Amino acid sequence: MSLSIQHLVIIGTGLIGGSLALALKQAGVVKRITGVGRSPQNLHDAIRLGVIDDASDNIQQAVQDADMVLLAVPVAACAQVFKDIADALPEHAIITDAGSTKQSVIKDAQKSGLDMSRFVPAHPIAGTEHSGAAAAFPTLFQNHRCILTPSTETSAESLAKVREMWKYTGANIEIMDAKQHDDIMASISHLPHLTAFSLINALHDDDVFRFAAGGFRDFTRIASSSPEMWRDIALCNAAAITDKIDALQHELHDLRQALQTQNGEALLQKFTAAKQARDQWLSAYGDNI
Amino acid sequence: MSLSIQHLVIIGTGLIGGSLALALKQAGVVKRITGVGRSPQNLHDAIRLGVIDDASDNIQQAVQDADMVLLAVPVAACAQVFKDIADALPEHAIITDAGSTKQSVIKDAQKSGLDMSRFVPAHPIAGTEHSGAAAAFPTLFQNHRCILTPSTETSAESLAKVREMWKYTGANIEIMDAKQHDDIMASISHLPHLTAFSLINALHDDDVFRFAAGGFRDFTRIASSSPEMWRDIALCNAAAITDKIDALQHELHDLRQALQTQNGEALLQKFTAAKQARDQWLSAYGDNI
Repeated sequence: MSLSIQHLVIIGTGLIGGSLALALKQAGVVKRITGVGRSPQNLHDAIRLGVIDDASDNIQQAVQDADMVLLAVPVAACAQVFKDIADALPEHAIITDAGSTKQSVIKDAQKSGLDMSRFVPAHPIAGTEHSGAAAAFPTLFQNHRCILTPSTETSAESLAKVREMWKYTGANIEIMDAKQHDDIMASISHLPHLTAFSLINALHDDDVFRFAAGGFRDFTRIASSSPEMWRDIALCNAAAITDKIDALQHELHDLRQALQTQNGEALLQKFTAAKQARDQWLSAYGDNI
Repeated sequence: MSLSIQHLVIIGTGLIGGSLALALKQAGVVKRITGVGRSPQNLHDAIRLGVIDDASDNIQQAVQDADMVLLAVPVAACAQVFKDIADALPEHAIITDAGSTKQSVIKDAQKSGLDMSRFVPAHPIAGTEHSGAAAAFPTLFQNHRCILTPSTETSAESLAKVREMWKYTGANIEIMDAKQHDDIMASISHLPHLTAFSLINALHDDDVFRFAAGGFRDFTRIASSSPEMWRDIALCNAAAITDKIDALQHELHDLRQALQTQNGEALLQKFTAAKQARDQWLSAYGDNI
């Protein structure tokens, strides 16, 4: 199967949307790319840098002859975008997204009245600390995972086409259930971020922090992430994250018990298990991250 | 005051003890350094590399004409070393250590019958991921903090001499109460380590971990630390760490509540406060770590 996209419309032309645009242009599989966004300056940059061919601030007009539409906006903004485009989309258009949570996005799409057979939920796991079209580059997704989470209604043709599109970015594509995706992300990303925020809040005292060193810097790096983005992700994946918080609370409770009873054997078992799990993970996958 | 150490005995000639030896030799303020340790190979390396002048496996003999004795062994081993040397020390010798917890070490020294006026508890906050005399280098402590926590019995002369010794390493010396030291370390080092271990244990599932990326790697780096060392530190600073665990559990509980009630405003406040605290810390001290 050889992919050919006539008109790709990217709603949210930032790092993710822009990098996909560049990768697909480089692969020569897309004829025209229109960017839609709230910032005229960012869209101007995107055109100047050859990320998109043209731009629009009218979302309904922009999608009316699209054959592929990508939502690359924060997850909390997806509901409104689905409502805006549901009735304006031409019948053959495929819709996909790049949000960090998937069950919430599927629910938003269903509520909007979108034809769910043509919606392929996706989450490319890639990013940098920069944002905006000017930060986009065509190899962002290379060797990174892109998880597709088709709903029960997603058609096989829609799924195949989105999968083909992401293959051109060099991403490693995995297909799984949206709930499984959200549980995995709660573990490897959402809980670590919320824990880093909590740790800083629990300990914050400038007179104490001035003694902190490199280990603290690394451990708390993700606490410098965008509060707005993490509020949205937390709200959209609240159930899975709550389960993981409970698991962490349970572990902290066990450690607390061991400390109070001076149970060195229990502490050693816990620390050894954690170190082994982390070291095994690093030796298996560390070269790819 | 010009420092001159006639005979420095280092018990535990690893990264910390060895690096202090090299710094003092380079400064020309020590005539002879004897290394004491359990590993003949490590002591052999230390002599070959010029870290120490001679070595001994008889701790009582080694200290009998020392004027400065440094304990650079794990905190859990200090009690036995104090007992071993208490009666063998000449009357003028000053004793210091480099342990990560200070109240426990002071208690161990007191129990051993050591002359407490000559004991200066110290904690140089420096290290690398390597260990052993072969990993030692003279600039390890440069621009790092070295905290001295004299007990009520420590004499002013002993404190002055140990302070002078650490100055030659280029360390920034701070003097504080042992309890304050242990509280600070519980915050900036001990709780982060225990949290990293707990997080890994709470989430561990190889099928899930394979999706983890760079943020997870940084956040969990300290979970690859030595389980034995962390067991010892945790046992030696259990009370302070327990307080910090309580504070973290309180924060996690608040987040859980906010998630369950979909309280985006509360989440945003928490995340913003954490990001601001972390960013402020980094801009104030980040260049020095």
